[in-house]
Amino acid sequence: MKLAVILALVTLALYCSPASAEICQNFLNVIKALFLDTPSSYQAALEFFNPDADMKDAMIQLKSLVDTLPSTTTENILKFTGAVIKSPECA
Amino acid sequence: MKLAVILALVTLALYCSPASAEICQNFLNVIKALFLDTPSSYQAALEFFNPDADMKDAMIQLKSLVDTLPSTTTENILKFTGAVIKSPECA
Repeated sequence: MKLAVILALVTLALYCSPASAEICQNFLNVIKALFLDTPSSYQAALEFFNPDADMKDAMIQLKSLVDTLPSTTTENILKFTGAVIKSPECA
Repeated sequence: MKLAVILALVTLALYCSPASAEICQNFLNVIKALFLDTPSSYQAALEFFNPDADMKDAMIQLKSLVDTLPSTTTENILKFTGAVIKSPECA
């Protein structure tokens, strides 16, 4: 299941135009890591943006909370994220 | 559920348009509401994107968790979000 979601997100990465959707892609990468990655992989993803110690601690606290959510809830949060992006206001 | 997630994400990929700034603004509005708004104001913000019942429930669960975070943590999460947006990769 997790692999399938990751593959779908990679598909998303390939479809997004690199020239125009970098912000979108960076957001999605962080959101993907928050909801789908292991804590160590997530922390590595955070380091990419050079957070200070307080920001890093806060993001790790957030991950600890998110990891308590049932997988069906996580899936529906990602579905909602998709709904935001494809909404007419985002077109 | 697995298929539903994949379909949602592939749909998301297909809709990923050049209007990345607008996508990000909508993301930011949802993130802001998640971390800063009252539960009722947040739910109103969610309705704007016509979520189905499962998505709405999931996003409300997420808000319930996020609201347990200390305000300093919330501030640092928003600072990190700012760091992602301002990073050279997003410029």
